[in-house]
Amino acid sequence: MKVLILGGDGFCGWPTSLHFSALGHDVTIVDNLSRRRIDAELNIQSLTPIKSISERLACWKVISDKSINFELIDIAKDYASLLNLINRVQPDAIVHFAEQRAAPYSMKSAAHKRYTVNNNLNATHNVCCAITESGMDIHLIHLGTMGVYGYGTEGNKIPEGYLKAQVGESQTPVEFLYPANPGSIYHMTKTQDQLFFFYYNKNDNLRITDLHQGIVWGTQTEQTKLNDDLINRFDYDGDYGTVLNRFLMQAAVEYPLTVHGTGGQTRAFIHIQDTVRCIEIALNNPPNLGDRVKIYNQLTETHRIRDLAKLIAKLTRVEVKYIVNPRKEAEENDLHADNACFLNEGLNPTKLRDGLLEEVFEIAKKYSDRCDISKIPCDSQWTKTNTLDKSGSDT
Amino acid sequence: MKVLILGGDGFCGWPTSLHFSALGHDVTIVDNLSRRRIDAELNIQSLTPIKSISERLACWKVISDKSINFELIDIAKDYASLLNLINRVQPDAIVHFAEQRAAPYSMKSAAHKRYTVNNNLNATHNVCCAITESGMDIHLIHLGTMGVYGYGTEGNKIPEGYLKAQVGESQTPVEFLYPANPGSIYHMTKTQDQLFFFYYNKNDNLRITDLHQGIVWGTQTEQTKLNDDLINRFDYDGDYGTVLNRFLMQAAVEYPLTVHGTGGQTRAFIHIQDTVRCIEIALNNPPNLGDRVKIYNQLTETHRIRDLAKLIAKLTRVEVKYIVNPRKEAEENDLHADNACFLNEGLNPTKLRDGLLEEVFEIAKKYSDRCDISKIPCDSQWTKTNTLDKSGSDT
Repeated sequence: MKVLILGGDGFCGWPTSLHFSALGHDVTIVDNLSRRRIDAELNIQSLTPIKSISERLACWKVISDKSINFELIDIAKDYASLLNLINRVQPDAIVHFAEQRAAPYSMKSAAHKRYTVNNNLNATHNVCCAITESGMDIHLIHLGTMGVYGYGTEGNKIPEGYLKAQVGESQTPVEFLYPANPGSIYHMTKTQDQLFFFYYNKNDNLRITDLHQGIVWGTQTEQTKLNDDLINRFDYDGDYGTVLNRFLMQAAVEYPLTVHGTGGQTRAFIHIQDTVRCIEIALNNPPNLGDRVKIYNQLTETHRIRDLAKLIAKLTRVEVKYIVNPRKEAEENDLHADNACFLNEGLNPTKLRDGLLEEVFEIAKKYSDRCDISKIPCDSQWTKTNTLDKSGSDT
Repeated sequence: MKVLILGGDGFCGWPTSLHFSALGHDVTIVDNLSRRRIDAELNIQSLTPIKSISERLACWKVISDKSINFELIDIAKDYASLLNLINRVQPDAIVHFAEQRAAPYSMKSAAHKRYTVNNNLNATHNVCCAITESGMDIHLIHLGTMGVYGYGTEGNKIPEGYLKAQVGESQTPVEFLYPANPGSIYHMTKTQDQLFFFYYNKNDNLRITDLHQGIVWGTQTEQTKLNDDLINRFDYDGDYGTVLNRFLMQAAVEYPLTVHGTGGQTRAFIHIQDTVRCIEIALNNPPNLGDRVKIYNQLTETHRIRDLAKLIAKLTRVEVKYIVNPRKEAEENDLHADNACFLNEGLNPTKLRDGLLEEVFEIAKKYSDRCDISKIPCDSQWTKTNTLDKSGSDT
């Protein structure tokens, strides 16, 4: 299949691009390289030494004898180039990762809030609008987040996207998009993305799959492991480092594992290798024309943050430190989410217990000399009234 | 009170500004004059000869001996000026009308879709973000639309913003934002606005009132009648003319009243005089700090489109013509909506039967020589597959 991968230079986009190319798909990466610009802005770098996009693609060509095309386009700003590309390539599917994806970054300042809103909403809308304008039947696959649901399910399992409920006196249940409860500006934009998809699916018959992903951990996939020049990003900083990768990094440099509040927040997780497999499954199982937006919960296990910290502490003998939570959220919550769709399609997950030690030693320890420990704390505060403590953050 | 009125040069914003000034409030209009730019783009003009904003304000000063301030700011683009203004004026309330408000205009082309999304979402987000950054306790009043609910209630009355439902086995009902079902790009942006409000209310304790308004009819209010230089807009074109004003105009020039499809769509209506009273009621009844977003349904009656056409046909002896519906919607729907909040607060509505003839003769007939009948049909098609017929449109 011909596939455009928007945001194909990023943490999830790059391994997906390699995975799809390895499967024999004709892949075009579209990226504005904003993630590299933000590295410069924050004066951080990936723990793993990532190569430029041209070096990455040249290496892949040598390793695999396959070409991946690259187009430098800011899809949030340059609609004409996006539309031209779609008309020229005539893709079967578009995978859309091209959004600012860090909750703490989205909360740093008014400018960061505004950038996240403007970038993410215009990017998603431009994709929907361009597919419609092209008149082609293109399957759109979007990387969403479990955070659209908000956490806290009050005993009910979170369904895959749609809630069945009884309204009024009627005995016939109605079903609608699960009520949104975003916990940050970033998460809010993903709840607004859902309305773009709902509308364009309804009005223009777009075929759309929305993947509500948990927190990704791990670094490497089968393809990124093939050569050092293909290595994936590993973020450990307070803005972009996801909670597990920060713990791994902290353990590798023997820095206490910083847990927010009681660490009673339950979160959903998935390994990066399973992310690319899930997107492959989504690609191979498009909704039928006329079907509503297909929503999968893309997670393989859930854990309380303090349990994760204790697990890594036990593996590495680094202590756990509890600090003030910069987020405005419940200290303790349960999370039960349905993920039957991917399991039914044959996903065989990499579990935390099996992969953690490999990550600690192959990535975190190996590159620990590149770690700047001053970048581990999260400086973003969710509200002005929160007491700010130098602390890490979890997505 | 000190009040900023964003979009205070527009159809609802201008009479609200005068009404608030007449009540003794200290009013500052903020507007980018985009509605006048769009008149030029579409090569149309208000049926009523509206004056420039400076002439309007000069006239008001003479008539009332009150000053209204004016700031030319594009709030969707120029965040710094908006924030500076808020910090300087220190308003008690901000009334936000500053969005592209025509469904047919939002569907004209990809460029119009993208303009509506970019303008409306950045405008609303900038307001929320600036209030938060200012640190002030400012009541935000937003003009939303009944269209966030979608039409078609399947026997249940549409509540004011929040739906109570039973989920799973639990006997305790849960309550959440009413599931959105927008019928156009314009309406979609209003459903996304709701998520801005939900989030900023939850995270930053913003006090917000969201008014889900029906279709406005009528032209004049107590203040705009005081002098010809204060006259309000009257749009009759296929993009901005709301259904009733188009019918009145068609009747005045003896052009057949064009009904889409069977005309079985039920819509909610409110007179412009009641719009300004409702906003006054909202201003005087802010939610308490810590309360959720307060949502009112701002309508006073509901009618089927064909019944309206028949009523006006009877009053004016102009024939009714049924044409193909350019919208993708059910041909027939009921609409039952709760509007108890405003009625409880003492709103005494102007009803259609009482005000229609006055509108026909005082406005539509009086200015009928200014009508360009070639502008009455709606050129926007909702989808590429809809058969396009030259037809009017209803919001």
